[in-house]
Amino acid sequence: MKSYLDCIPCFFEQALRAGRIATDDEKLLKHLLDELGEKLRHISLESTPPETGRLIYWMVKEITGNPDPFRKLKHESTQLALELYPSLKKTIEESNDNLLTAIRIAIAGNIIDFGASAIFDINTAIKESLVKDFAIYDYSTFKNSLEKAEHVLYIGDNAGETVFDRLLIEQLNKPVTYVVREKPVINDATAEDAIQAGIDKVAKIVSSGSDAPGTIPGICSLEFREMLDSAEFVIAKGQGNYEGLSNEKRSIFFLLMTKCQIIANDLGVSKGDIVLKGINI
Amino acid sequence: MKSYLDCIPCFFEQALRAGRIATDDEKLLKHLLDELGEKLRHISLESTPPETGRLIYWMVKEITGNPDPFRKLKHESTQLALELYPSLKKTIEESNDNLLTAIRIAIAGNIIDFGASAIFDINTAIKESLVKDFAIYDYSTFKNSLEKAEHVLYIGDNAGETVFDRLLIEQLNKPVTYVVREKPVINDATAEDAIQAGIDKVAKIVSSGSDAPGTIPGICSLEFREMLDSAEFVIAKGQGNYEGLSNEKRSIFFLLMTKCQIIANDLGVSKGDIVLKGINI
Repeated sequence: MKSYLDCIPCFFEQALRAGRIATDDEKLLKHLLDELGEKLRHISLESTPPETGRLIYWMVKEITGNPDPFRKLKHESTQLALELYPSLKKTIEESNDNLLTAIRIAIAGNIIDFGASAIFDINTAIKESLVKDFAIYDYSTFKNSLEKAEHVLYIGDNAGETVFDRLLIEQLNKPVTYVVREKPVINDATAEDAIQAGIDKVAKIVSSGSDAPGTIPGICSLEFREMLDSAEFVIAKGQGNYEGLSNEKRSIFFLLMTKCQIIANDLGVSKGDIVLKGINI
Repeated sequence: MKSYLDCIPCFFEQALRAGRIATDDEKLLKHLLDELGEKLRHISLESTPPETGRLIYWMVKEITGNPDPFRKLKHESTQLALELYPSLKKTIEESNDNLLTAIRIAIAGNIIDFGASAIFDINTAIKESLVKDFAIYDYSTFKNSLEKAEHVLYIGDNAGETVFDRLLIEQLNKPVTYVVREKPVINDATAEDAIQAGIDKVAKIVSSGSDAPGTIPGICSLEFREMLDSAEFVIAKGQGNYEGLSNEKRSIFFLLMTKCQIIANDLGVSKGDIVLKGINI
């Protein structure tokens, strides 16, 4: 997905929100926004939003001198999600359609996103996500394709959400490779976060080789690109991965909650909707 | 009121919204935002938001080559408000407290503000404003001060809202001087807009000498500053005038609806509240 003019005010909001996690020094924060302002001319609308997200996060790290401002928040999010794990596992096992319930819960976990919104209530999100109608619902194709596949490539999104991904992976009944970001960016999951969530017990963890808050194949490692090309069945979680992968030519199933109006428009749904969308299927 | 860091993303939103009224050329709009980005370093948080609003509007005019992009919208807003005038006049005259009802309606008119939000529903705003509790309610002081004054200085805000101001002026029972912006800026009322609203039938129309979307005494004409200093009783409508005048040392009654979280915080109220606040009273 390309960037839209409306993304630009949001880039400044994101910079301010991420900056405030790293520092409360108003002068540094103003300097951060000024620097982003200077760079704006070089940010093309043809680039995807996670490319700019990556730039913003570099600036936050450089200007505040804090190499991983979200580390503590990520750890806490994962800890919180782990506390919910047993009851969510039970909810899935007691449901009529374990796979579908696990998908709904994995999407609810997508609300844990400091990039898109500072305020979230995970319990409300779970309750809503369990009963809400899907705005896009490619479940039968998802299920059929999954049955035929011998292996799943699962592209993760945020720390904390990883625990919810684990619950879905446990229902896939296939060997899974779980993709994380190479380096910390906002609250996106790295290998360390995935291990804290216990993903290593249910999947092989690999890095995309990129530090963008979304998967943009062009800036990922060659190993990951080959993995993506040859994968039988691909699940990509969250808005950042949708933004980076929506124009790919291969089949991908996106699981996300639309937290941004622009992405909702791009998908043809409303803000706040839940989506299970397959492309090239 | 000074600017806050959170105003910065909003400046870009305002530029985009105003720019889109003037042109639908995406390249020009990106250029407008890039130019604002370049200038951001020189925008101090010590300046008031309308000072930056003025800069943004200058840029919109210069970059799009359109000297008054809001002219048609302002004309239509005033026309719409004039159609509501007879029934609103009746509502006021049939109420228990004509002055208070006129104040409530004048505040409801403040929702006509393309600077703060593109979407408004004036009829809903009127209905709500007629029954809503004031978050700040200095009505008794307002009434007492008004009774003692022999003349009122009324600082207007947006075109269209001017018709609602006229309804309040008709209940003040005092000679009124009505202040408008010197030149077009966003949808703020100029003399032309005030005359279309029929303000000339109930008040003397004067210009503040400024083209900022708010009244910042330092950049107004000497005539206006003297008028403000010597005025017995001052009413200032809307957020822009609050932003520009909230630190003045003289008594002023602000009538507004808080459409922005930052201004709501500054006033110690919630977004969407209605306010009748006197300072130095």
